[in-house]
Amino acid sequence: MTEYINIAEVIGHLAGSLTTAAFLPQAIKVFKTKRTQDISLLMYIILCLGVGCWFAYGVMINALPVMIANGLTLVLAASILVFKLVSEKEK
Amino acid sequence: MTEYINIAEVIGHLAGSLTTAAFLPQAIKVFKTKRTQDISLLMYIILCLGVGCWFAYGVMINALPVMIANGLTLVLAASILVFKLVSEKEK
Repeated sequence: MTEYINIAEVIGHLAGSLTTAAFLPQAIKVFKTKRTQDISLLMYIILCLGVGCWFAYGVMINALPVMIANGLTLVLAASILVFKLVSEKEK
Repeated sequence: MTEYINIAEVIGHLAGSLTTAAFLPQAIKVFKTKRTQDISLLMYIILCLGVGCWFAYGVMINALPVMIANGLTLVLAASILVFKLVSEKEK
């Protein structure tokens, strides 16, 4: 049974790493191009709220993969949100 | 103790709903404007892989909030990815 649980742990860490890493290329693209027109502001507002809840959920059920993944994702998603807000203001 | 666990369940469902719903405004924006230039292709490729892993993780640990949230997110993220791929091809 432990081996089965270890596979789930590995998948959880992989999932967390991928869904966190996914926001890096978008943050870099926005940082380089300073263009955010096609990016949905509402998406990143809701996403930051949701990822914040996932972080709290991870703390409450004491699941380290969920805490680490969502803590980092929040930093990346929030930086994209700030870029979007700044570029909206400059319009 | 059960009351504490119920709060975690509520937070988990809320987190899942928000991080799933977040992709809806982006999918609608892309569908309406047909513009995806500022959206990172690499982000959505990695995101779809990661969300697929989260879905598998949810199945393995038998966590319904994780399964439902990531199943729906995969549909939305994949539709944005398809839009991005189609618009890249039309360039």
